[in-house]
Amino acid sequence: MSDLEIARAAAVRPIEHISDAAGIPREALEFHGRYKAKIDPRLLPEDGRSPGKVVLVSAMSPTPAGEGKSTCTVGLADSLARAGQRVMIALREPSLGPVLGMKGGATGGGYSQVLPMDEINLHFTGDFHAITSANNALAALIDNHIHQGNELGIDPRRITFKRVLDVNDRALREVVIGLGGPTQGTPRRDGFDITVASEIMAVFCLAADPADLKERLADITFGYTYDRRPLTVRDLQVQGALALLLKDALKPNLVQTIAGTPALVHGGPFANIAHGCNSVIATRTARRLADIVVTEAGFGADLGAEKFMDIKARAADLAPDAVVIVATIRALKMHGGVAKADLAQPDLEALRDGTANLLRHVRNIEKFGIPPVVAVNRFGTDSQEELDWLLSWCAGEGIAAAVADVWGQGGGGPGGDELAAEVLAALERPVTFSHLYPLDLPVDEKIRTIVQEIYGADGVELSVPALRRLKEIEANGWSGLPVCMAKTQYSFSDDAGLLGAPKGFTVHVRDLIPKTGAGFIVALTGSVMTMPGLPKEPAALRMDVDADGNAVGLF
Amino acid sequence: MSDLEIARAAAVRPIEHISDAAGIPREALEFHGRYKAKIDPRLLPEDGRSPGKVVLVSAMSPTPAGEGKSTCTVGLADSLARAGQRVMIALREPSLGPVLGMKGGATGGGYSQVLPMDEINLHFTGDFHAITSANNALAALIDNHIHQGNELGIDPRRITFKRVLDVNDRALREVVIGLGGPTQGTPRRDGFDITVASEIMAVFCLAADPADLKERLADITFGYTYDRRPLTVRDLQVQGALALLLKDALKPNLVQTIAGTPALVHGGPFANIAHGCNSVIATRTARRLADIVVTEAGFGADLGAEKFMDIKARAADLAPDAVVIVATIRALKMHGGVAKADLAQPDLEALRDGTANLLRHVRNIEKFGIPPVVAVNRFGTDSQEELDWLLSWCAGEGIAAAVADVWGQGGGGPGGDELAAEVLAALERPVTFSHLYPLDLPVDEKIRTIVQEIYGADGVELSVPALRRLKEIEANGWSGLPVCMAKTQYSFSDDAGLLGAPKGFTVHVRDLIPKTGAGFIVALTGSVMTMPGLPKEPAALRMDVDADGNAVGLF
Repeated sequence: MSDLEIARAAAVRPIEHISDAAGIPREALEFHGRYKAKIDPRLLPEDGRSPGKVVLVSAMSPTPAGEGKSTCTVGLADSLARAGQRVMIALREPSLGPVLGMKGGATGGGYSQVLPMDEINLHFTGDFHAITSANNALAALIDNHIHQGNELGIDPRRITFKRVLDVNDRALREVVIGLGGPTQGTPRRDGFDITVASEIMAVFCLAADPADLKERLADITFGYTYDRRPLTVRDLQVQGALALLLKDALKPNLVQTIAGTPALVHGGPFANIAHGCNSVIATRTARRLADIVVTEAGFGADLGAEKFMDIKARAADLAPDAVVIVATIRALKMHGGVAKADLAQPDLEALRDGTANLLRHVRNIEKFGIPPVVAVNRFGTDSQEELDWLLSWCAGEGIAAAVADVWGQGGGGPGGDELAAEVLAALERPVTFSHLYPLDLPVDEKIRTIVQEIYGADGVELSVPALRRLKEIEANGWSGLPVCMAKTQYSFSDDAGLLGAPKGFTVHVRDLIPKTGAGFIVALTGSVMTMPGLPKEPAALRMDVDADGNAVGLF
Repeated sequence: MSDLEIARAAAVRPIEHISDAAGIPREALEFHGRYKAKIDPRLLPEDGRSPGKVVLVSAMSPTPAGEGKSTCTVGLADSLARAGQRVMIALREPSLGPVLGMKGGATGGGYSQVLPMDEINLHFTGDFHAITSANNALAALIDNHIHQGNELGIDPRRITFKRVLDVNDRALREVVIGLGGPTQGTPRRDGFDITVASEIMAVFCLAADPADLKERLADITFGYTYDRRPLTVRDLQVQGALALLLKDALKPNLVQTIAGTPALVHGGPFANIAHGCNSVIATRTARRLADIVVTEAGFGADLGAEKFMDIKARAADLAPDAVVIVATIRALKMHGGVAKADLAQPDLEALRDGTANLLRHVRNIEKFGIPPVVAVNRFGTDSQEELDWLLSWCAGEGIAAAVADVWGQGGGGPGGDELAAEVLAALERPVTFSHLYPLDLPVDEKIRTIVQEIYGADGVELSVPALRRLKEIEANGWSGLPVCMAKTQYSFSDDAGLLGAPKGFTVHVRDLIPKTGAGFIVALTGSVMTMPGLPKEPAALRMDVDADGNAVGLF
């Protein structure tokens, strides 16, 4: 059965059953249909209990097909609930662009999914549409300011804030706007990103509350004057209008897993030019309601977990209590040198070689002072011999680990019981969390720390434009911001083909992009695609509505 | 008090109180927060009662400030409910672009508003966002088809389908896309319209049901091949994906007036290049639930009412039972020659001269076989002498008329009682509804009929490009479609400055645009703005959220 067929066959409960069980008072609920509700955090009781523990699900360096982080997040939470824990999930919302393009949904898989799968993957509760609207309202206000006389002296060549759409549309990557004469605006080069790449998405996901949202919106640098002075939304005085467009979206969305575990699905910034985690507000809300919160960060642990620790944990003022690193036999064999086409064949030698990648991720998590647990996400092609070997290797290295069959069994079955037990054991261990670097380190030193400590690089090399930008960042007083690395997720290095646990390499930083509203400096290594394209046979060709009004073709 | 302040002070009821009173079963409701719900028409009972009567609210040729059609629509329905009638309103959804730009909300005014005013004016239930998404997904799929080899032979110079955003953004009116080299699409000239101008919006509003929606989507002509053959969405085979993106939006939205009258607010096509009425599905749903449905068409009666009769009434298979023509003392004096700055001064002579405009609209409605009722929408600057004179003039001409003070009193007071009584009397009169023209008349003859019979023109002149397009329309077999006139609303003619009831003029048709999914041929007279711009001081500058999370600055 496809994910959509499994999701449709599942018995979805009215959302008030889920919220009642989670202790959410009815007055804090805003229904969106029968199975989705927004929660107003201001209307939750202040009961003085300590916030729930945070389990971050991350992964080893993945294969292009992905290792099933979301599936493991859902399955682990379901299994923790099965073990009698009061648990809640915090996940990112899927982007519509990829849904119409290649990959179908992003709501877990198999029997470890959040429901209603089709609605979450399509418009959900409209949060991304609100972010798109706010982004494009700001863009229109910027061009209108220039058109109406340009009092602020905006240099049209140095506007860094781009328009966005939640669609994969390569033809919009590079455009010229404002054509048609003096009544149609000022011609300039521009481009569109996908909505998840908007700085407003990152701001939305890092804001602590509505007041902080407005401040962060005001702090967005949208461009520069002719004399290179940075210009912010505060200069345009439209942070209030943008906050108004986002005020309802800012309430986290409650849904449920197939097993009935409550999940807050809220926000979804890119994992490359942003930090790749659900909203701070959703994570905090979940911690107020549950004893354990299972959440996820995009990409492998070198990117996702590091940014979680150094960006999100700072904004949310939290310390994770355990980190799950999802590994698969397939990915380990790929890092051990097996070609993609042969990953289904048993190969103990390659498996052994591939553990170098996993091991580096595990040791990295330990550097943050947090106990790691390896979740071996079971695939149908795994041999029992491979799984047994991997578990005994983990034991030999002193790494807590368990095989999880959550795709095939979900929280209704015992497939995640051993993983849940390992995670519960890890939560008993002491945590001495520390960030990787202090904020007062210079920006280039922060980058050097990340690439040496986490990636295992010899060092970092900044391009000439990046060095120029570094000086501007220092001159503008932005040196105290954390760094958001934009790097391939397939390798510890900036070369996607360098698998395993490479050594003796240098990371090349092509450019630095200050995101003063989100509150980080993006360090670009290699080229980063911020507007995907559609494939030759887009998923849209298979999508439809049947005669009963049901979604068809969403995988 | 501002409209927003009045709206916030009003006692808004939980939407299930409204739906229960309207006889909507709970299982047909999908809540969107406490005060909005979508209704699934498939889940309404089939009780065999005859559909409710339809009262169309239109207007004389307006002043630039508008004559208060929405306010009168809401106030009339409230007053009919006060008179004991089982009534429901069907209205368009507001566009976000103008809300951020100039005019604030579009949900009525004063004490005749639909609630929650702020939510309806901002994202509401996300319908326009769904339409924007479907529109831009189609645009991306078109450019992707070209990029991937262009099997259909799409001529990039002859793509007629444009991208849209629900924002006023003049810099996007004319753009060049696909720049940056061979991996970034094919460069071509393009442009963005505002979402309400999307053909998908018109399709959405004319579809009878989900199956008809998919057919109409498939019938959209998006461009032409190099050998000038029209290409439709059916050629791309993506009507299923577009229908999927629209399936939930297609359910009408239930809200309430300040007085508690149920209102379906759904869809909102432009009144110039489209037909300017709420969705057929909303109107039909309202007729299943109420004995009287009060609805509205954009612009003056020469445009709005004519398109209602010849486009929407055909798609919805309905005959209106009465037409209310909203007139104001101000607008009548303007048509009598008074300058805008002096409209507050009493001027009986100008008032008398201005009645020529109103009279032509009244006689036009009679041509459709429907009884007209003039609603004099009272403004604070009207003198009693002017109001008395106008009512006696109407009586002399045999025109049913009443003064309505619905802005100041709303349905809670007697301000609309007389208007309601006149409308109820009109509903007792016999209707012998006929369309203005048969569909088998040639397109240019349809246009001639409209401009001579409704506008009072001597005739019509088609430009050379329009004549060329006429031939293509005939060759492609589209001659049987009705005509959708795009003309200034300020004059019966195509010259906005020609007020009153002009004679001896010719209407110039600049171009014809076939909209084969919506199912009409747009006849463009003069230039029509399909992407508005922002003013020097946009409304966004005043908009904000207060510390309690309430909207500020929405008028």
